[in-house]
Amino acid sequence: MNLLSKTFSCRIRSVLRTSYFAQTSQLLHFSKKVESDFEKSTEGLFRCSANYVPLSPISFLERAARVYGERTSVVYGGVRFTWRKTLERCVRLASALTQKGISRGDVVAALAPNIPAIYELHFGVPMAGAVLCTLNTRHDSAMLSSLLRHSEAKMIFVDYQLLEVARRAVDLLSKTSQKLPLLVVIPESDIPSTTVGNMNFTSDNLEYESLLDIGKPDFEIRRPKDEWDPITLNYTSGTSSRPKGVLYNHRGAYLNSLATVFLHGMGPMPVYLWTVPMFHCNGWCLIWGVAVQGGTNICLRKVSPKGIFDSIVLHKVTHMGGAPTVLNTIVNAAASDRRPLPHKVEVMTGGSPPHPHILSKMEELGFGVSHLYGLTETYGPGTVCTWKPEWDSLPPSQRAKIKSRQGIYHVGLEEVDIRDPITMKSVPPDGKTIGEVMFRGNTVMSGYFKDLKATEEAFSGGWFRSGDLGIKHADGYIELKDRSKDIIISGGENISSIEVESVLFSHPAILEAAVVARPDDHWGDTPCAFVKLKEGKNASAEEIIKFCRDRLPHYMAPRTVIFEDLPKTYTGKTQKFALREKAKAMGSLTKGNANKN
Amino acid sequence: MNLLSKTFSCRIRSVLRTSYFAQTSQLLHFSKKVESDFEKSTEGLFRCSANYVPLSPISFLERAARVYGERTSVVYGGVRFTWRKTLERCVRLASALTQKGISRGDVVAALAPNIPAIYELHFGVPMAGAVLCTLNTRHDSAMLSSLLRHSEAKMIFVDYQLLEVARRAVDLLSKTSQKLPLLVVIPESDIPSTTVGNMNFTSDNLEYESLLDIGKPDFEIRRPKDEWDPITLNYTSGTSSRPKGVLYNHRGAYLNSLATVFLHGMGPMPVYLWTVPMFHCNGWCLIWGVAVQGGTNICLRKVSPKGIFDSIVLHKVTHMGGAPTVLNTIVNAAASDRRPLPHKVEVMTGGSPPHPHILSKMEELGFGVSHLYGLTETYGPGTVCTWKPEWDSLPPSQRAKIKSRQGIYHVGLEEVDIRDPITMKSVPPDGKTIGEVMFRGNTVMSGYFKDLKATEEAFSGGWFRSGDLGIKHADGYIELKDRSKDIIISGGENISSIEVESVLFSHPAILEAAVVARPDDHWGDTPCAFVKLKEGKNASAEEIIKFCRDRLPHYMAPRTVIFEDLPKTYTGKTQKFALREKAKAMGSLTKGNANKN
Repeated sequence: MNLLSKTFSCRIRSVLRTSYFAQTSQLLHFSKKVESDFEKSTEGLFRCSANYVPLSPISFLERAARVYGERTSVVYGGVRFTWRKTLERCVRLASALTQKGISRGDVVAALAPNIPAIYELHFGVPMAGAVLCTLNTRHDSAMLSSLLRHSEAKMIFVDYQLLEVARRAVDLLSKTSQKLPLLVVIPESDIPSTTVGNMNFTSDNLEYESLLDIGKPDFEIRRPKDEWDPITLNYTSGTSSRPKGVLYNHRGAYLNSLATVFLHGMGPMPVYLWTVPMFHCNGWCLIWGVAVQGGTNICLRKVSPKGIFDSIVLHKVTHMGGAPTVLNTIVNAAASDRRPLPHKVEVMTGGSPPHPHILSKMEELGFGVSHLYGLTETYGPGTVCTWKPEWDSLPPSQRAKIKSRQGIYHVGLEEVDIRDPITMKSVPPDGKTIGEVMFRGNTVMSGYFKDLKATEEAFSGGWFRSGDLGIKHADGYIELKDRSKDIIISGGENISSIEVESVLFSHPAILEAAVVARPDDHWGDTPCAFVKLKEGKNASAEEIIKFCRDRLPHYMAPRTVIFEDLPKTYTGKTQKFALREKAKAMGSLTKGNANKN
Repeated sequence: MNLLSKTFSCRIRSVLRTSYFAQTSQLLHFSKKVESDFEKSTEGLFRCSANYVPLSPISFLERAARVYGERTSVVYGGVRFTWRKTLERCVRLASALTQKGISRGDVVAALAPNIPAIYELHFGVPMAGAVLCTLNTRHDSAMLSSLLRHSEAKMIFVDYQLLEVARRAVDLLSKTSQKLPLLVVIPESDIPSTTVGNMNFTSDNLEYESLLDIGKPDFEIRRPKDEWDPITLNYTSGTSSRPKGVLYNHRGAYLNSLATVFLHGMGPMPVYLWTVPMFHCNGWCLIWGVAVQGGTNICLRKVSPKGIFDSIVLHKVTHMGGAPTVLNTIVNAAASDRRPLPHKVEVMTGGSPPHPHILSKMEELGFGVSHLYGLTETYGPGTVCTWKPEWDSLPPSQRAKIKSRQGIYHVGLEEVDIRDPITMKSVPPDGKTIGEVMFRGNTVMSGYFKDLKATEEAFSGGWFRSGDLGIKHADGYIELKDRSKDIIISGGENISSIEVESVLFSHPAILEAAVVARPDDHWGDTPCAFVKLKEGKNASAEEIIKFCRDRLPHYMAPRTVIFEDLPKTYTGKTQKFALREKAKAMGSLTKGNANKN
C-alpha cells in the first residue's frame, strides 16, 4: 500500500487550519471539506486539536508561565515581574484591547523605549488577534503621522516621555483623516505612583495600568486561525528614504524565535540585557525567544556605558546584543563607567558588519562576540558566523577578520546564497565574485503591507532579494561587501565602501566613518569619507587620505574627507542615504580630464 | 483598515502548500484558487518559494552539510563520515530507491542496530518521498512478518547479522502475500571489504553500498508536498500485546527534533553516543536533531558497559541517552570496564521512571542526568523535568526524588495535563489526585496506520490520551503513577506499581523488580512482585515482603514474590503484560474471606 495513493473516508486526515477547533477540544470529522491537496490520503489518520495547533509565539509565554512561573521574567529598575504575572498581565491587556473595540487583524501601534509595557504588548496584542506595529522612538511627528496613516492603527500606546511627539503626530493625522487612533499613555512604572501626577498627560487619556485593570484574567486568548496570520508590522528603519511596512506572521515569528535562541547559544534561564531596541524587528524576535528558555529580560530605558556595565554586574547578565554602535559604546566607555565582568557575556552584534578592531577590543574586555546578519524582511537575524573551534588558535587579527563575516543561514531558514541578480545563478565560492545576498525560507516576511509591487520586486525569481552585495568564501560563509546602492563605481571599478571604512576605522584618531559615492565628471564616482574623530584626537584630511592610500589600491582611497557627526538611525545604522545626498550636493571633484591616480 | 477583513486581488496571500513551487523558484500568482479560509486577506502579501517551505528535517541535513561540511557526522569503529559526505550518501540513497521503484508514500523498512546505514536511511528514505519503518531488532520472524504485512513495505534493509530472521520473515509472508519486499543487505562497514565474502548472503541479494553506487549525487530531492506528509512509521514496542503503527509527519519530526535539542541542552557541535536505539521513535528524533547542531554521532552496534565508557573517553562524548536499563548498566559496570569521565556527560533518561537511587549513583559517577518522558505517539520525548537552580542545594535523596518526576511539556508541544478521563476536567495540582496524562500539540502523531478506531479512541476529547496515570504537583510538574492497565486495585484502593517498585529497588539485594496485579478472590487484586537479585546476593520472599511492609502502607506491600529474569523490550521496558499473564495464571492467593491485612 502506498501511504499517499489511496483516498479513504473523508474523516481521514481532514484539514484543520483553524485553532478554533483546538479551543473547543473536539474531534474533527469533516465530512465534505476535503481539499484537493489532501485527497491522496492515508488510512487511520486525522488532524484535530490533539495533534495540530497553528504555530505562534503566544505558546512560548503560556509555557514559560507553566514551567518557570515563579522565576523573574522582566526587570526594569525597581520593577520586577514573574512569568506567571507577565502572562496574567498580557491576558488582561488582550482582554482590555477587545473591550476597546480591537478586532482580529486590527493594527495596534506602540511608541516606547525598552520598558516592560512594550515587552507585554508583543504578547498581549497578538493575544487579542491584533497586529502590533512598533514605531521607531527617533521618528519625528511628521514621520509618525505618515506611518499611523499607512498602518491605519486603531490604537497607539505611547511612553510618557514621547507623548508630545505622538500628540503632534495625531494632530497632523487629524488634518487628513477622520479615523484617529485611541491614545494610551504608558507612565513611568519605576516610580511611586504618587509622582505620576507630575507627568504631562491629562485625565482624558487612557492610561496603561488602568487599561490592564479592566482586562479580565480569564479572557479566552484569540489564537491565530491560521499560522500565516499577521502578528507584527515593522516599518523599515530608514536607511533608505521610503519606509516600508514589513509584515511578520505567527509561523515565522515562532520559527525565528527558536532559531534566534539557538544562534545566541541560550541555555535554560538566560539573563538578557535589552540593548537592542524592542521596536526593531521585535527585538530580533528575542522578545518571544527569551520566553522559550524562561529567561529574565533586563529592560533599560536608555543605553549608556554605565547602564550596560552596572546591569551586567547587578543582574548577572549572560547575553546581550546590539549594532556595532553598542559595541563602540562599550569599548569607548570611560574608565569610571566600566566594571569588571562577573563572567563571559555573550554579545550578538548585527545591523552592519562590525569592524575587526572593535571585535578584538570586545574580546579583551571579556565579552564573547558573535556576529549575525539579517534584515527587517528576515525577522531580524538570518545568518550567523558560526564559530569553529579550529579558529581559536588563529592570531587575533585573523580571528576578528573571520568573525566579521556574515556566515551561513540559521536553522529557521532554508537557504542563503549569493546570486547574480540578473541570471539568478549562484556565484562561485571564490571569495571574490560579488553577487546579491538572497534568502529563502519560513522566516522571510509575508510581504510589504499595501505594496504588492514592492513585494513582487523583493521576491522576484522566487528568492528574497536583500539588496545587499556580498561574496561567498570557500567554506560557504558569506561576507557582505555593500548594499547595492552603497557600492561606489569609480573609473569602472567597484569599490566596497565597507572595505574603505574598515581601513578608516583602524586609524587611531577616528571614532566613526562612512564612505559614500561623490559624483564625478571624470570617474563617474569617487569615494567620499565622512569622519568623526575621537575626543581630543586630531587628523587632517590629507593625513587620512594618505593613511588609506598606504593600505588600499589608490583608486579605493577617499578623495574627499568631511569631518562631522554621522547621522544615525536609532538602531545604530549610519543613514548613508543622507550622506549620499550631501556628497551629491558637493558636485564633482574632478573637472574635465584630470587623472590624479 | 483591518488586516484580515478585506479581500484583494487573488494574487494576494495565495495559498501555497506544496514545495513543488519552492523547487521551481517561481513566484506564485494563483488567480483562482483562493480558499475560503484565506478569503479575508491582506493587501501586499503572498506566499511563494521565498517565504514558505514545508517544514522537514531534511533541511537540517542540507544545512549541516553547508555549515559543518568538513566536521565529522558519523563514527562507527574505524568508519568516519563528514556532514558533506553524509548528505551525499543520503542523496545517492534516495536516488537509488527511486531507481528501484520507490514512489512517494511507499514504506521502506529497516532492521538494524545503531550502525551508520540506519542513520542514513532516516534522511535518504524521506528524501525519496518515502516513509521509513524501523523495526525492533529483537522481534522474531513471526512478528517481523506480521509487521511487514501490515506496513506493506516495498523494501527492507537488513543488517547482515539479522539476515536469517529477516529471510524467515519474508518466507512466512510469502505464504499469504504475493508482494514481497525487496531485501537489501547491510554488510559490516567497519571491516576491510575483502572479508565481506565470509558473510552469509548471496550475490542475488542487493547490497547497501552497491545500491548507493547506483544513486546519483545530483538527484533532485523529493521534498514533502505538504509538511503533514508521513515521514516514518513506528510500531509501538510491545509493552502491550498488539503493536500499533504510529505515523509521524515531516512537520512534527522537524518540531520535535528542535525541542529535543533544547531539552538535551545541546549547544553547537555536540558529541552524541547512541545508546538509545535508533529504531525507537527515530532515536527520540535525535537522528535529525544532532544534524541541527552539526554534532557527531557515535554509533555502537551493541550497548555494553565497556563500550559506553570507552566511547566517552575516546570521542569526548558530551551527551547520551537511554532507558533506566542503560543507567543500570552504567552504575553496575565492573570496575575493569569503568573509565574516569573526561568531563560531565549529560544523560537523558526516559522510557520509564528512573529510580531515585540510580539517579544518585549516576551523579556520583560524574554524569548529569535529566529525566524526560514521552511515548511513541509523542515522537518520543514529550516532557522534561526541567531542573531549577534552587534545587541544587537539596539533599541528594530529595534531588533524586524531584528528578524522577516527568516534569512539564517541552517547547514543541502545546500542553500536557493530568485530566479525569471521563469528565476531561483537569485534576487539582495537589500532588495526589490521580488522572490520565494527556497531550496536545504538533508533536503528537498523525494517527495509527490503518486503525482509525484506535486513532479515534486515542484522540477522543481532543487530547491524546496516553493511558498513563499520574498526579500534578503544586509547581505544575507531573509525576507518573502508572499505566492505567498497570494500576493494582486491591480492596478498593489504588496501588501504584511504580511506588512499590521504588521501594523494592532500594533493597540492597535487588537488581530489578516489577510489580503487577495478581487476581484475588477476596481483594480483587493483590500486588505480585517479580524480582531479579544482584549476582552473589540473597534475599527470601518473606524478607522482601517485610522490607516493603516496613516502608509502605501494608495493603501496598507485595503478597507474592517471584524470583526470575524480567522479560524486556529492547528499549529496556519491562514487558508487564507478560508478567500480568503469569500472575493471572497463578490464580487467587486468598481464598474465601481471609483478611490478612
